[in-house]
Amino acid sequence: MTDHRAIFQRAQAACASRECWSPYPEMPKLYPDAETAAPAGEAAFRAMLGKPFALDLPGVTGWVGEEVSPYTQAPLGITYPQADPQALFAAARAALPGWAAADPDARVMLLMEGLDRLYARLFTLVPAVMHTAGQSYNMAYAGSGVNALDRGIEALVYADQAMRSVTPRADWARRFGRDEIRLEKTYRLVPRGVAVCFTCASFATWNAWPSILASLATGNAVIVKPHPASVLPMAITVRVFRDLLAEQGFDPNLLTLCLDTVADPLGKVLIQHPDCAIVDFTGSARFGQWVEANAHPAIAFTETSGCNTVVLAGAEDLDAAIRSLATTMCMFSAQMCTSPQNVYLPPTVDTPDGPVPRDVVADRLAGAIDALTQDPRRAGMILATVQAPQTLGLIQWVRDQAAGRGRILLESRGYEHPDFPGARTATPLLVQVGKDAHDLYAEERFGPIGFVIDCDSPEDALHQATEDARSNGGITGFLYARDEGFIARAETAYARAGAQLTINLTGAMPLNFAAAYSDYHVTGLNGAGNATLTTLAFVASRFAVAQSRRPTRFHD
Amino acid sequence: MTDHRAIFQRAQAACASRECWSPYPEMPKLYPDAETAAPAGEAAFRAMLGKPFALDLPGVTGWVGEEVSPYTQAPLGITYPQADPQALFAAARAALPGWAAADPDARVMLLMEGLDRLYARLFTLVPAVMHTAGQSYNMAYAGSGVNALDRGIEALVYADQAMRSVTPRADWARRFGRDEIRLEKTYRLVPRGVAVCFTCASFATWNAWPSILASLATGNAVIVKPHPASVLPMAITVRVFRDLLAEQGFDPNLLTLCLDTVADPLGKVLIQHPDCAIVDFTGSARFGQWVEANAHPAIAFTETSGCNTVVLAGAEDLDAAIRSLATTMCMFSAQMCTSPQNVYLPPTVDTPDGPVPRDVVADRLAGAIDALTQDPRRAGMILATVQAPQTLGLIQWVRDQAAGRGRILLESRGYEHPDFPGARTATPLLVQVGKDAHDLYAEERFGPIGFVIDCDSPEDALHQATEDARSNGGITGFLYARDEGFIARAETAYARAGAQLTINLTGAMPLNFAAAYSDYHVTGLNGAGNATLTTLAFVASRFAVAQSRRPTRFHD
Repeated sequence: MTDHRAIFQRAQAACASRECWSPYPEMPKLYPDAETAAPAGEAAFRAMLGKPFALDLPGVTGWVGEEVSPYTQAPLGITYPQADPQALFAAARAALPGWAAADPDARVMLLMEGLDRLYARLFTLVPAVMHTAGQSYNMAYAGSGVNALDRGIEALVYADQAMRSVTPRADWARRFGRDEIRLEKTYRLVPRGVAVCFTCASFATWNAWPSILASLATGNAVIVKPHPASVLPMAITVRVFRDLLAEQGFDPNLLTLCLDTVADPLGKVLIQHPDCAIVDFTGSARFGQWVEANAHPAIAFTETSGCNTVVLAGAEDLDAAIRSLATTMCMFSAQMCTSPQNVYLPPTVDTPDGPVPRDVVADRLAGAIDALTQDPRRAGMILATVQAPQTLGLIQWVRDQAAGRGRILLESRGYEHPDFPGARTATPLLVQVGKDAHDLYAEERFGPIGFVIDCDSPEDALHQATEDARSNGGITGFLYARDEGFIARAETAYARAGAQLTINLTGAMPLNFAAAYSDYHVTGLNGAGNATLTTLAFVASRFAVAQSRRPTRFHD
Repeated sequence: MTDHRAIFQRAQAACASRECWSPYPEMPKLYPDAETAAPAGEAAFRAMLGKPFALDLPGVTGWVGEEVSPYTQAPLGITYPQADPQALFAAARAALPGWAAADPDARVMLLMEGLDRLYARLFTLVPAVMHTAGQSYNMAYAGSGVNALDRGIEALVYADQAMRSVTPRADWARRFGRDEIRLEKTYRLVPRGVAVCFTCASFATWNAWPSILASLATGNAVIVKPHPASVLPMAITVRVFRDLLAEQGFDPNLLTLCLDTVADPLGKVLIQHPDCAIVDFTGSARFGQWVEANAHPAIAFTETSGCNTVVLAGAEDLDAAIRSLATTMCMFSAQMCTSPQNVYLPPTVDTPDGPVPRDVVADRLAGAIDALTQDPRRAGMILATVQAPQTLGLIQWVRDQAAGRGRILLESRGYEHPDFPGARTATPLLVQVGKDAHDLYAEERFGPIGFVIDCDSPEDALHQATEDARSNGGITGFLYARDEGFIARAETAYARAGAQLTINLTGAMPLNFAAAYSDYHVTGLNGAGNATLTTLAFVASRFAVAQSRRPTRFHD
């Protein structure tokens, strides 16, 4: 195993300062020996297609696989071993004692090695993510690849910090009456038990890796329950870590995979299993709420949906602001939990050249989005594909609803992907509505669907936006404004609403880019989830402290 | 306000090393100017009796008070303002923004000052605890007084540590394509909201102070809901902190008191209030389980009951071990959540003088308990009183159950308290049963009730004890053994069962003494509660992190 200590220390410093840092370059061409590694990784992916995935799990009862590539709309043909949940829990429990007894530092360093080995398979993971989640090559490489690895390291940093806050032993002496009592005390970190990690269809690794690593680092076992549409990235993850655990003398059943199907979901069975001690969940708000309310006695960490809001009250450079908004609303067809959906507009937007009427701003936003989708190559890079067929139906439903209640600013249409003619694609639908259409826009409409909402004033726009974020679960908020007093009020309002705010950002950075080691993801203050990547709260309750004390034994 | 920084730094060091330390001497005679302070404090207590308690709360609808002194069995006659829960939540919410905006360090130092002011009223709190909880003078002074203050400081240390792990601001710079993006980021600690702290009848301050302080330090407001039988210590606490908050320019409604009565409990109303964000609960296992399962979306920290176990397999000095056990089983009539209840005995106990038959050990334990209760003055100091009248009925019920199923080793009887002839007292009942009486002993029987349980072997005794602790919620475990291999197995078994273990302790220290800054209280691994005093997990989820980022503004 490589010595990961220097990198880990650098990561600790980054988490403390929240400066920009990563051990992984974000551009594929900077990958070590990329010219060889890229085609080799791609070939390894191709070799998996149409075959059973080699993964040795306990209690296998059959083989299933339902993945369909959003790029080809053809099945991947990979089948995975389906294991009996009871057998997975039993195997996980049997694996626990040896792992729990290992030195926490050794666990953390082993998991750092595991991330390195995922990095070594990055060019296999990239097509695996593309052909399940439907992301672009660049996003699969960066967002689902190196950025997700960073989130994994970050979780290890906090797990390490929480565990280090407990000293392993103490000498304690005190007088009771005439007696001097001297005790030697030992403090043992006891994992909570078996964790279940639910991963989502569109962006699995970014939440899964920190969750899995937070649980493993603190001594727990993990059963990964991937969305049936996006199994492969998780199957690769599980195989890499199982091999590493076995190689290092630990029981590989510390990390297993539980497959289910859309027709026969196993989520509730796993959560209600008496041995389920921790649940990490990324997925729908509806099931996420059920998880939070019903996981007990397991503890639950959730990230569900984002009703993400934009307040556009003013801008120094309105064109630049609109370009940034348009790009971010197009990015991966708005299938990120951080994608902006609702743009709240006052009657006029304040610019150095004077107020610009709302309808003009709305039309310019529609125009900017439209312009981004005209060139198929550019559209392919930005929009990529639509992960789920149901999303196309949702776009149509919202369009029909909005047609009678507002203005269609931009129709959605399929675009021809330059490399994948069979790709499932949709350009963004953008509609303009009044506040009376609250039922339509005030929840996440997953996919390339945007709303422009007419508000009475900048203050009203801020009020509406933050109320919707608070009530319906906003993860991100975006503000453009020129008035510093208004900006300060917005910062307070968004903090109370529990959405992470980006202000007056223009330029090449996607507005919703969340940097590991620097940006906190989800506050836990609204319905978008209860867990933050990554704080001490994300890790500290995954283990307990058991102590033992006895009179000090004096040695010669 | 005094400068508390030096003391706080010393407390931080103690939490890190877990060595013995306290800023407060544990003996009343070492209290500053004790000769004057003690009678003055007692007089202040006397002056409160039979009157309305002066406490200005929002939304007062009436006055209630049901406290009866276990020492006199006469009502205290104190009435307290009963406030409408809706008004308390509204007032707490209104008070939040100013407190949340305060510097976290300033909050912590203000709360340190509050603890100092409680210390200044210690000689009033002591009789308040005695005449509600029924504790002895010494226990009210130490356990409910200075030790509880220590637990409060300890909670502040961890709250401070968790908050400091979030930097308030960062400069972040990265290249995106040709653009260099520079962002200034601010991270704001956002309190979760309004906490409700339920306190118990027999030992309120020790859990309440750390819970209240953990919530307040992290920016929340707290509504204290005391057990109707033990209001006065909490009413004094709330008044002290309200006065301090107001004096320092904060809204006193950050800390309020919600009175209810045995006939009309308000617990569920408070927990299910939409503004309830945090619940701290000390009380029955039954309601505690309900709290854990139903508090969502509020987060819950619980400490309920302890089915506490002793494995007596061997001893270097059997007499000393039995003396220690007897004393600890008598302490405050076993009304502490850490009191041992079940003594698991193998057929013989291993001593340097050879094996001692179980029945001989059982009889000697009964004899030792009996000896402690013979001298009324000593009994008064150790046993003190029985807090609740129902406990006497429970003793009788267990006695009747055990009579047909085992051996009564020691009958319970009232003893005459030397200073309070009307005191409600009971010496311990000790019964010997087989494992077939599992239904009788395998849960907490609150009060002076002990079981000796016949086991097949030392290993069987360990297995039974740790299984009962794991299944029925043990907080503490006690082991006497001579075989180091057996001790090592017991440490692992108790750690997995989630009970804090004390090994081979004899001498003047009560076996169940839990030292702040050193002993972790409750593991969260079994039904005895989910919260530990004090770890990062006890504080880290009481606040969220909200961030705001914007392009860096360059100043000349």
